[in-house]
Amino acid sequence: MGTGNEGGKIVNGIDTGRLFETIELIKQKPDIAKFKFRAKNRWVDGTYNQGFVKDFYGAGAEDNTRDEAVFEIDEPPVLLGGNKGSNPVEYLLVALSGCLTTSLVAHAAARGVKVKAVESRYEGDLDLRGFLGISESVPVGYQEIRVYFKIDADIPDDKKEELVLMAQKYSPVFNTITKSAPVAVRLEK
Amino acid sequence: MGTGNEGGKIVNGIDTGRLFETIELIKQKPDIAKFKFRAKNRWVDGTYNQGFVKDFYGAGAEDNTRDEAVFEIDEPPVLLGGNKGSNPVEYLLVALSGCLTTSLVAHAAARGVKVKAVESRYEGDLDLRGFLGISESVPVGYQEIRVYFKIDADIPDDKKEELVLMAQKYSPVFNTITKSAPVAVRLEK
Repeated sequence: MGTGNEGGKIVNGIDTGRLFETIELIKQKPDIAKFKFRAKNRWVDGTYNQGFVKDFYGAGAEDNTRDEAVFEIDEPPVLLGGNKGSNPVEYLLVALSGCLTTSLVAHAAARGVKVKAVESRYEGDLDLRGFLGISESVPVGYQEIRVYFKIDADIPDDKKEELVLMAQKYSPVFNTITKSAPVAVRLEK
Repeated sequence: MGTGNEGGKIVNGIDTGRLFETIELIKQKPDIAKFKFRAKNRWVDGTYNQGFVKDFYGAGAEDNTRDEAVFEIDEPPVLLGGNKGSNPVEYLLVALSGCLTTSLVAHAAARGVKVKAVESRYEGDLDLRGFLGISESVPVGYQEIRVYFKIDADIPDDKKEELVLMAQKYSPVFNTITKSAPVAVRLEK
């Protein structure tokens, strides 16, 4: 959230000088930490729809500078779709993957810990009897998600374990999924 | 999950004949409702990483037939990134948007309710003091997500409200976020 003029030590590709300046700035003005992220969706046909991401609010200002990103969302034929894109529950795993990875890398950088490579894989169990309304006792959402990290860094395994714990502690998507968040859905007339 | 030979009445682009056959099949063999969805992630640099989606397990078999989908994940400059992609919490909104939309359209189809257009928008509140470790009392995840649906269909408003309620009841991503799911994260050595 700096002006871009400061700059500091780069660790893992993260400008830790700007990171620490941002933290100090937020301590003085907590309101600039309040962000609003957004998406839009348009149904196309059947299980095929498109997601759109462009503007957000943060650091006290609207940001409309990014090009609009378009995401193709569909189901495979076994789920009555046409494979025009990954499905919504796969997008959820992608969101989780990006968030845990960024949290791990950024918090490592803040502690001066250099990583060379970070790879991870995700698997979630979903019982479609929930979605299909066949059983009220089966959870509609993911029953469990498993994540496996591989970290290449010149640090002992217990320090890598610490990075994996930090990623979980500070990842917004991980915490949204594991602690839940209220979602208010309204019809616009 | 049919053989593709059946086919039935198409509503909202959904083959409701196959949908009802699938439901009957699952009632007889509940195990075929058990799916495993997957993703991978590779850190590139700084806040930039890539998500990958390809295979899944479902209906009793592995599916490796899809091309790999690649997702660019990054942060905007104000969050120390380079805008190479939408950020993880935006991907979460995209996942939610796809899931609520598909759930709405599919459950409408199952009830014979035709929709002409479905659009929705999403906004989530995130206080970065959680992610940055500035305050332990601020949630790390989304504090609230608001969703607004517009539905074009020849049905009265109360029937549209019912569709919006069904979307929430049956959406796996909505239920994962609002009811939480366990996420087990492990380091592979």
